[in-house]
Amino acid sequence: MIAVLSQGASPERTEHLINWLKEQNLGVHVSHGETHTVLGLIGNTAGVDIDMIQSLDIVESVTRVSDPFKAVNRKFHPDDSIIQAGPAAIGGGNFALIAGPCSVENEAQIVYVANRVKQAGANFLRGGAFKPRTSPYDFQGLGAEGIRLLLEAKRATGLPIITELMDIRTIDLFEDVDVIQVGARNTQNFDMLKELGRTRKPVLLKRGLAGTIKELLMSAEYIMASGNENVILCERGIRTYESTYTRNTLDLSAVPVLKHLTHLPVVVDPSHGTGHTYLVEPMALAAAAAGADGLMIEVHNDPGCALCDGGQSQTPDQFAETARKIFRVREAVQG
Amino acid sequence: MIAVLSQGASPERTEHLINWLKEQNLGVHVSHGETHTVLGLIGNTAGVDIDMIQSLDIVESVTRVSDPFKAVNRKFHPDDSIIQAGPAAIGGGNFALIAGPCSVENEAQIVYVANRVKQAGANFLRGGAFKPRTSPYDFQGLGAEGIRLLLEAKRATGLPIITELMDIRTIDLFEDVDVIQVGARNTQNFDMLKELGRTRKPVLLKRGLAGTIKELLMSAEYIMASGNENVILCERGIRTYESTYTRNTLDLSAVPVLKHLTHLPVVVDPSHGTGHTYLVEPMALAAAAAGADGLMIEVHNDPGCALCDGGQSQTPDQFAETARKIFRVREAVQG
Amino acid sequence: MIAVLSQGASPERTEHLINWLKEQNLGVHVSHGETHTVLGLIGNTAGVDIDMIQSLDIVESVTRVSDPFKAVNRKFHPDDSIIQAGPAAIGGGNFALIAGPCSVENEAQIVYVANRVKQAGANFLRGGAFKPRTSPYDFQGLGAEGIRLLLEAKRATGLPIITELMDIRTIDLFEDVDVIQVGARNTQNFDMLKELGRTRKPVLLKRGLAGTIKELLMSAEYIMASGNENVILCERGIRTYESTYTRNTLDLSAVPVLKHLTHLPVVVDPSHGTGHTYLVEPMALAAAAAGADGLMIEVHNDPGCALCDGGQSQTPDQFAETARKIFRVREAVQG
Amino acid sequence: MIAVLSQGASPERTEHLINWLKEQNLGVHVSHGETHTVLGLIGNTAGVDIDMIQSLDIVESVTRVSDPFKAVNRKFHPDDSIIQAGPAAIGGGNFALIAGPCSVENEAQIVYVANRVKQAGANFLRGGAFKPRTSPYDFQGLGAEGIRLLLEAKRATGLPIITELMDIRTIDLFEDVDVIQVGARNTQNFDMLKELGRTRKPVLLKRGLAGTIKELLMSAEYIMASGNENVILCERGIRTYESTYTRNTLDLSAVPVLKHLTHLPVVVDPSHGTGHTYLVEPMALAAAAAGADGLMIEVHNDPGCALCDGGQSQTPDQFAETARKIFRVREAVQG
Repeated sequence: MIAVLSQGASPERTEHLINWLKEQNLGVHVSHGETHTVLGLIGNTAGVDIDMIQSLDIVESVTRVSDPFKAVNRKFHPDDSIIQAGPAAIGGGNFALIAGPCSVENEAQIVYVANRVKQAGANFLRGGAFKPRTSPYDFQGLGAEGIRLLLEAKRATGLPIITELMDIRTIDLFEDVDVIQVGARNTQNFDMLKELGRTRKPVLLKRGLAGTIKELLMSAEYIMASGNENVILCERGIRTYESTYTRNTLDLSAVPVLKHLTHLPVVVDPSHGTGHTYLVEPMALAAAAAGADGLMIEVHNDPGCALCDGGQSQTPDQFAETARKIFRVREAVQG
Repeated sequence: MIAVLSQGASPERTEHLINWLKEQNLGVHVSHGETHTVLGLIGNTAGVDIDMIQSLDIVESVTRVSDPFKAVNRKFHPDDSIIQAGPAAIGGGNFALIAGPCSVENEAQIVYVANRVKQAGANFLRGGAFKPRTSPYDFQGLGAEGIRLLLEAKRATGLPIITELMDIRTIDLFEDVDVIQVGARNTQNFDMLKELGRTRKPVLLKRGLAGTIKELLMSAEYIMASGNENVILCERGIRTYESTYTRNTLDLSAVPVLKHLTHLPVVVDPSHGTGHTYLVEPMALAAAAAGADGLMIEVHNDPGCALCDGGQSQTPDQFAETARKIFRVREAVQG
Repeated sequence: MIAVLSQGASPERTEHLINWLKEQNLGVHVSHGETHTVLGLIGNTAGVDIDMIQSLDIVESVTRVSDPFKAVNRKFHPDDSIIQAGPAAIGGGNFALIAGPCSVENEAQIVYVANRVKQAGANFLRGGAFKPRTSPYDFQGLGAEGIRLLLEAKRATGLPIITELMDIRTIDLFEDVDVIQVGARNTQNFDMLKELGRTRKPVLLKRGLAGTIKELLMSAEYIMASGNENVILCERGIRTYESTYTRNTLDLSAVPVLKHLTHLPVVVDPSHGTGHTYLVEPMALAAAAAGADGLMIEVHNDPGCALCDGGQSQTPDQFAETARKIFRVREAVQG
Repeated sequence: MIAVLSQGASPERTEHLINWLKEQNLGVHVSHGETHTVLGLIGNTAGVDIDMIQSLDIVESVTRVSDPFKAVNRKFHPDDSIIQAGPAAIGGGNFALIAGPCSVENEAQIVYVANRVKQAGANFLRGGAFKPRTSPYDFQGLGAEGIRLLLEAKRATGLPIITELMDIRTIDLFEDVDVIQVGARNTQNFDMLKELGRTRKPVLLKRGLAGTIKELLMSAEYIMASGNENVILCERGIRTYESTYTRNTLDLSAVPVLKHLTHLPVVVDPSHGTGHTYLVEPMALAAAAAGADGLMIEVHNDPGCALCDGGQSQTPDQFAETARKIFRVREAVQG
């Protein structure tokens, strides 16, 4: 870590800072320039509070030389991690095609959709049982019953299931769930991350609503530092000023950036990431072309409900067509 | 609520949508224009999922006529809410000057700071016991012991205390805490909000890291809808592209906007909102001028640690000077 | 256009507003609801200042029913526009592969790069003569001499050339340039847009640094409304809070959104959009998969300068490899 | 400037980089750490292209030790600059209260408003003659005739006038204008800035729509580097994800940050910065409390048009009340 001191930092305060840094068990290499003094910090700087040091008025800027994340860092683990979830695997060339409805509604629905997406090539079933809703007056999901229905669909199709945990106190309900999803509003719910770190269950960790790439990696680090190595990262769109035509801005450059920084697999959610069905296919294909290890796509059934044809969910037929193209694009970029 | 249908929406799908809306117990008033059909929805639209309807491809845009928040809405509760917390009150002309260290470190520290800020005019003591940290390797706070020390400082000074809850499973530790803080990373931890709604304890709810004003109000609505009316809102800076010179962008316009929309008191945190001591005083004065019902300011002691003079915390002497000016500005804008 | 009036808007002020709207030659359809009065405005609302009406305190919200853009609107021009530039065309299935150095440096460089990118499949040559630089102390480009060198490369290879106009007073220098680029800092330089509208020269219009999709379309509308139909849109990354690992956030969802809203061709610039060579290929492939009509990629030569291998530019060899994959991905998504 | 090289940067490429840097006339101090090599660059680094170096794949990060701006830098010019404009001055304790209508409409209007705002304490008159409009179909201002009318109002009241330049080719029309405004869409119109640098006319430079503080300073540097020292900076709200309740997010922390970094005066525009009349007064008072050197407020007249009472403009009566409070707040913070 390198700290550039402010022009005019007094010798006394500079010395105080150097002494304090040494007390944190850091080696300090001081270099006096023409206008600025520069401190090079050596040793384990991962635990140093960069924001605090940055905020000191005798400090002009601080730069980390080494990354603050270790367990997730590709530098220390060059090979892709492969996460096994039931019969399916993600990472290291294994592609996860995750599909299913936004909310689990009833057994017929979830089993029907599971069968259809499996036929189309999906190897994971997703479905919401506990739903995070901005408004307390909106439908909050079927809860425990929703998980029970997902398990029925798993039995019927053999597909491993992914569903979201919202309250750490309900974790026992997730015993037979294959992958636990942490939603965008809980990416920095650190106590939940620590608790998930104590299990050995694969965790699909979504990027925060307006989370940085570094924050996503640090949240994954929380899980891994607590002992669970089975972490899957998920880009799901970030909040920007553009919200007229897309609900979020899907940051596909996060895919190659994450693949560069970490060995963990990276999945993309083009359904929440855009908010409109007509954007799901082009963004799914783009994600595959950018090197994603998987895709998570909302698929709704309800062939009798013409209304449902239009939301951010695809119909099973649309999904089958998109899946076919996804596999073609994967071939094209590998060739 | 008004839904404008897409040009070229087919009569069949339009009818499907209208029927579906009627099944949600809404009155639907249809108006066919030259190029577009417009639906006016009447009845309780608060529970209608505007994002879902917006995402339908036969819908071009949706506008709410009435606000999605009710309990927090000033329209239905024109008078300012006054929240009582021990001997102090916030709202309706009662100003909360909340001060204290970022983290509770030991008894001497917290009692010393509590005495100093009380002398300067503070009527609340803040201090972190459980600390949300981006990195799992950073200091996570003293936890239960930190709360015990805050209670010592409360006994010594009579100041009501505010501290942050991070894990709903630890809520019993907060029995004697006067105001429970919900941090920016938990603003949309809906299960925590519901649980806090079941207490009668005042809650200081921080705006999310990149939270909208509407989301802040909807999160307050979660607490109030669950039965707890004692909610205090807190602006603490939002995430923007400008991060070179300030850690966050303190959105002071949120103060008059919130005062306009809701009867709940609004507090501003200029310390986290800017990240630099030299910005705390001007932003504190600006917040007071903009009509805030309170300020939350980090004050650190440690007169022996020259280092600590510089971070985002003020020293007790700096705080006393700032407090004096805050009261002058409040007089000026009221006169 | 639909205006929802505030609850409690007085009859007098409501009437004033209605009269004023009628004076703007709009039909006004008034509908009194339980809590709100809603005005439906009929006629040519494109010239109505929505921001002004929105800002009125008796108005709660305003929604446009019809788009504010006409000439660029796909609704009125369903077929893709095809822009011809010298021997090459863009749009309607014609793909533009635009490549070349960030800055033109000398004749040997630009001719060498032009030959190499042409071999690899590029059908346009780009190169900066006038360079917009944040700092007045940075290299500002070769200017007129740079354009002369580009024309040499055009003569040598037959490739049509694209280069940026920064000052409308220099437009005469662009007589033999095939496509005039408007940079991200001039997207809303309305007087420049009007002037370009008076030519018949193809214009490549970049999205603003933090420009919305609607603003990009309105700026294209400025050019078309002034009489020039040859407009190409370019997504080049937008400014977001994420700036640690990417210079901008490349918004690829803008591609299918723009293709949906307008008949104009859409090109993507993954070099400026990411700022790192290692991200150029994956984002180029992703853009092709998302349906872009073209790509603009920085290619630098200088085989003797090992330094130059690393910036956001690709080498000619890297570009050839990327180009090969781009064509494969285009085949995959069309099939 | 400090460049941290990537782990694993080869000795050859490292040497290439070092040699290239030396060719730019920089001293290079190399320090080999355990995991990373760090280069300290000495000499005139203001002209070094930090983005280019950052983008090199052998470079992990680059930190400037010295600011890229010189002429505007308070370090080299500790005293506040005082800009004289006709009878009025800004900076160094001189407060500019700038008021007037958004657009100049006719002589009666502009003279009436000028008289009213002068009575209330304004010492500058503003008014738009050339108007930047997102849509080509919106009213574009009276142009030259608008400037003529402003000069009438100046003659009638003695108030110096401020109005916006949009097209450098019209600069001759601004000969008797006291302060030339550069709008938010032209903050990085570098050719315009250079041209304004060749005059001696005071320039009010607005922050870009989504401009950083550093970019604003660099644009001011363009003007000063070209020879004109009379620059006034203006915060006018930045683009963020929050756009439901405010048009922009007024970044008041930019005021003390700018006062810290530069000697130039800083003015705030709460009218455009918020977009709603009811927010103008609280934000004006907050800006004054934060230490602004001036305020620019839209005031409209038209006592016969009840409609106009509500937009983002204040009435003359509202302005008089706000002005009175502004002066009170200035006293309070100075006392």
